[in-house]
Amino acid sequence: MKSLPSPFILINSAMSADGKLSTKERKQVKISGKADFDRVDALRASSDAIMVGIGTMLSDNPSLTVKSEKRRKERTLAGKDENPVRIVADSQAKTPVDADIFKKGSGKKIIVVSKTAPSEKVNALLKNPDTKVIVADPVGSGRVDLTEMAKLLKKEGIEKLMVEGGATLNEGLLAAGLVDEINIFIGNMIIGGKNAPTFADGSGFSENNLLKLELISFEKIEDGILLKWKVKND
Amino acid sequence: MKSLPSPFILINSAMSADGKLSTKERKQVKISGKADFDRVDALRASSDAIMVGIGTMLSDNPSLTVKSEKRRKERTLAGKDENPVRIVADSQAKTPVDADIFKKGSGKKIIVVSKTAPSEKVNALLKNPDTKVIVADPVGSGRVDLTEMAKLLKKEGIEKLMVEGGATLNEGLLAAGLVDEINIFIGNMIIGGKNAPTFADGSGFSENNLLKLELISFEKIEDGILLKWKVKND
Repeated sequence: MKSLPSPFILINSAMSADGKLSTKERKQVKISGKADFDRVDALRASSDAIMVGIGTMLSDNPSLTVKSEKRRKERTLAGKDENPVRIVADSQAKTPVDADIFKKGSGKKIIVVSKTAPSEKVNALLKNPDTKVIVADPVGSGRVDLTEMAKLLKKEGIEKLMVEGGATLNEGLLAAGLVDEINIFIGNMIIGGKNAPTFADGSGFSENNLLKLELISFEKIEDGILLKWKVKND
Repeated sequence: MKSLPSPFILINSAMSADGKLSTKERKQVKISGKADFDRVDALRASSDAIMVGIGTMLSDNPSLTVKSEKRRKERTLAGKDENPVRIVADSQAKTPVDADIFKKGSGKKIIVVSKTAPSEKVNALLKNPDTKVIVADPVGSGRVDLTEMAKLLKKEGIEKLMVEGGATLNEGLLAAGLVDEINIFIGNMIIGGKNAPTFADGSGFSENNLLKLELISFEKIEDGILLKWKVKND
């Protein structure tokens, strides 16, 4: 069992058949098609919050909004914001003040920083409407403590958190024992490259202490395959 | 269509759910179980030759033999050697003279080298019985030219070549347009690590020129899933 308190955390990702998220130049690649895109949109709409790491924020500038108007309406009818809370794990507050999460779609934004995040950057981010900055760094390490972050997000009322990468955040959450489920769409291509980002980079696990998974389901979607794994945190 | 002449080349590999072949220390990890092991053995027995790159040779010292006695007998009854030809792509002839491929099982061995492979090492390797050294380096680059190698192996009568990694050889063969099929068993674990070997390392493909695959089949085997991909070389 994973340590509590924490939201239920699901990592969703698309990777090439060789486990890459993008090319070595971090160029985004169209790995999945319309059907998987729609599945991801439904997953977003069913989540309380969507998170990315600062690497993904800086390279992709994702808006992280729910694309389907119908799903946004359903959320509103259920008394929720149109979009889930959009969160960036960003120890040094490097998220650009004019990032698309601030410009596209309505709803709350949370930037999770460390104690050493420059205050002028934090203040600039706070000028965006519906934006909160949370410090998750109990020992002042200058890095976001992911376990503390999970606790604080749970306090914010986030019960279901969807993580959309990248490689470093994924690995950090997995290593901290915080992830409950992984959905990986495997696309029909090889990206290759020693330096291309993979589903889980970081320092990785040792051979005596690998993180074990359990296959929940598998399904062919268009030209690829979707694998759902339960994470065995014990 | 791939360029000819070349054997039919199939890469078989087991990787973690995040695309890793082993840990960052290159420690071998048990990714698959008995059923997949048996499938791989059958695939070996049905091949004319089995190849690894020098990295895999040096880190794993694999014997590359057919494990099932029944399958070895069937090969003998069909007039073949007990084991397929065991091949190492090894530009500098670094394969140890006492590697397990020379000590375990009977059958031919081929070490494929470049023109700059030290002759004393080549001569030492040639002292092993049933061992041939092939130079595949038409322009004297000091590296094995994989297209030339494929041509020479075809001349040796090898029609079906199974490749068992590692990451660099896989990527080289894929980039050279020589691979016909890929079988990947995905195991129920995360290995992680920015520096852990993946299914295809090397320099990788660019975003406008990804190597496209076609999903032939998928099948749950024990706790993981086997994906078979056809490579679209065009």
